[in-house]
Amino acid sequence: MTDVNQTLLARLAKPADTKMVLLVLDGVGDLQTADQPQTALGAAALPNFDALATRSALGRLVAVMQGVTPGSGPGHLGLFGYDPRSPEADFGRGILEALGLALEIGPGDVAIRGNFATADADGNLTDRRAGRISTEEGRRVCAKIAPALAEFSSPSFEIHPGEGYRFVLLIRGDGLSAAVADTDPQNTEVPPLEPRALAPEGEHTIELLRPALAKILAAIADEPQANRVLLRGFSKLPTLPKMNELYKLRLGAFAGYPLYRGVASACGMEVVPCAKRFPEILDTVAERWDDFDFFFIHVKQTDQAGEDGDLGAKVAVLEEVDAALPRLLELGPDVLAVTGDHSTPAPMKAHSWHPIPLLLHGPRCYIDGSSEFTENAATVGHIGTIPSRDLVGLMLANADRLGKYGA
Amino acid sequence: MTDVNQTLLARLAKPADTKMVLLVLDGVGDLQTADQPQTALGAAALPNFDALATRSALGRLVAVMQGVTPGSGPGHLGLFGYDPRSPEADFGRGILEALGLALEIGPGDVAIRGNFATADADGNLTDRRAGRISTEEGRRVCAKIAPALAEFSSPSFEIHPGEGYRFVLLIRGDGLSAAVADTDPQNTEVPPLEPRALAPEGEHTIELLRPALAKILAAIADEPQANRVLLRGFSKLPTLPKMNELYKLRLGAFAGYPLYRGVASACGMEVVPCAKRFPEILDTVAERWDDFDFFFIHVKQTDQAGEDGDLGAKVAVLEEVDAALPRLLELGPDVLAVTGDHSTPAPMKAHSWHPIPLLLHGPRCYIDGSSEFTENAATVGHIGTIPSRDLVGLMLANADRLGKYGA
Repeated sequence: MTDVNQTLLARLAKPADTKMVLLVLDGVGDLQTADQPQTALGAAALPNFDALATRSALGRLVAVMQGVTPGSGPGHLGLFGYDPRSPEADFGRGILEALGLALEIGPGDVAIRGNFATADADGNLTDRRAGRISTEEGRRVCAKIAPALAEFSSPSFEIHPGEGYRFVLLIRGDGLSAAVADTDPQNTEVPPLEPRALAPEGEHTIELLRPALAKILAAIADEPQANRVLLRGFSKLPTLPKMNELYKLRLGAFAGYPLYRGVASACGMEVVPCAKRFPEILDTVAERWDDFDFFFIHVKQTDQAGEDGDLGAKVAVLEEVDAALPRLLELGPDVLAVTGDHSTPAPMKAHSWHPIPLLLHGPRCYIDGSSEFTENAATVGHIGTIPSRDLVGLMLANADRLGKYGA
Repeated sequence: MTDVNQTLLARLAKPADTKMVLLVLDGVGDLQTADQPQTALGAAALPNFDALATRSALGRLVAVMQGVTPGSGPGHLGLFGYDPRSPEADFGRGILEALGLALEIGPGDVAIRGNFATADADGNLTDRRAGRISTEEGRRVCAKIAPALAEFSSPSFEIHPGEGYRFVLLIRGDGLSAAVADTDPQNTEVPPLEPRALAPEGEHTIELLRPALAKILAAIADEPQANRVLLRGFSKLPTLPKMNELYKLRLGAFAGYPLYRGVASACGMEVVPCAKRFPEILDTVAERWDDFDFFFIHVKQTDQAGEDGDLGAKVAVLEEVDAALPRLLELGPDVLAVTGDHSTPAPMKAHSWHPIPLLLHGPRCYIDGSSEFTENAATVGHIGTIPSRDLVGLMLANADRLGKYGA
């Protein structure tokens, strides 16, 4: 990643005795439509956010680019100051599947997304998804495989069941490479492909993988459906420049769900175990207040309510956060940014590309006359509409953590 | 062109059964000044646009960058999702002149913009514009040249009269290069320059051009004024990635004037012959409604009125478009964007850099409370002020034609 803005910020970053909080209300942005005349922020009673808005600057974030709907990975990378369009910021499919299963992944580990498949007596595939076996069946087959993998230790292998016929194979050890091609031939009537290196450094990993793969196949040889595995999306955590090094910060991630912890960890944050709802997360934040300069707090339930198309539930989550907000303010953050990683409008029941409202509170914010934290107020707020990846710079500046550029 | 945004959109694009209309009111944006207190959009009575605005999102487009006044080429390239600042998106002067004359240009053809000029008995130029001969005179001289060029076939040469002393020389064939320097010495009292290659691949084209040039000069040797030619702006159609391939679309261009048809064609649109005024263009759009996913409709007269400094004429064009708008809406486009390729403020009698108002109507638009389609309403609209090249992404997203980016 040689992002010009990130490089410049890193060059200007300086230590300071200030504390920043990035409160991410996942999917907070919503729509006004003919059928839904008010957004969740508009409909909710948020006296504490409203009061904060009168002392803050509002604006909007565009996560990736106009029109592009981000997944949670790109959405958060933007909030953390990375350009989510960069190929280096691309999280591989194996890693994403593993993060989604709440697996802890080390920087050297390789994660693989696997399918169970069916082959006939000649070894040719008859079903690349093993008849779409149930999640329960998948768990049973994985449990059969696990003991066979237990004998490997350097590297070690772990198999974790996913949904239905899917699983994650994790290889943990040193000197591993993800430069290995998928073994899925994308066709039936042929055998699975042998693992093939995509670059010379993949050969060693394949040598390590081969005996484990043999054990896996031996363990499931008598299965009527799941008697083969197809391995896809070999990947490692992206090697991103770390926020702690770039900006001379101690960063703590307070997220109740694994995907967000995984992305935060890959960006140089310390993951702090915590509960899933904002009031309880706040307890943990308070306990660790002295340990960090930057607190990433993630609230998942706004997104879940949006995905369910349940405006009332989204409103209730926002009101729960609002009620607990004074406790966050009492901790005395110098800078508080409240926003989302993307919009999840209830009428769409899905993530969307619409700009995300942002509230930025700090001693050097322009108090722009906003009296509420809503999409409408944010549209005409002082910060304007900016890329998500520009937020970190605004937070650092407000926290007096950026020197002047040039004389 | 390796524009990161365009590449990302192309990667996410997916087919859908939706229809999009991009209605370009050329030069629609205008100014409020002390002497012109209302813009054309502000002064016009536009009941149908006003009603549409109450169900739409407004915003503004910046065609190239702040302060840069675009010609029609860059203005439209931006609307079509290209970065008009890219050198690859540069339409050469020969090509633009040829497109302006409605000439069909193949991907390998070279277009040259020519001047007739006058030389004395020694061959030195006395007038680089042949005494600004009339268009009629120019036509007569071109007609004298045409038979002399008819004997060439590989490549073939065509001369097409333009305005006054100007003409277009088209070379059609294979293996041609545009890497040839202008033969205009930019001075009198010297002869025209010999064609000179700007790169090795230009040499072959010059060899092919030389006998044709000799025939041209022989044909006009006895002319009192137009007895020389100066050749400028050797150029080929830019090899742009095509919108139909990038976004998996069938695109139709409905434009009454050649330049816009030429740019649309170079971007992968099918050019549909049509009339010059919006009500008649709409008839053709209706006839071809089943054939395309994306309809580019170009209305020229707003720009012409602006160039004339005639606010009243600009208002009248807008009211003509407004009156016919219901017929467009009845066709049932899923997404309708109304905007311009640039502003042409009447007080300036010229193109300008001012942001262009945008109205975006679709099922996933944020209804932002606008009650009119004007520059003032657009300034505070939900879309904000964005580059023209971001519009395509918003249209595709609203038409449900973009997949999610990352997990």
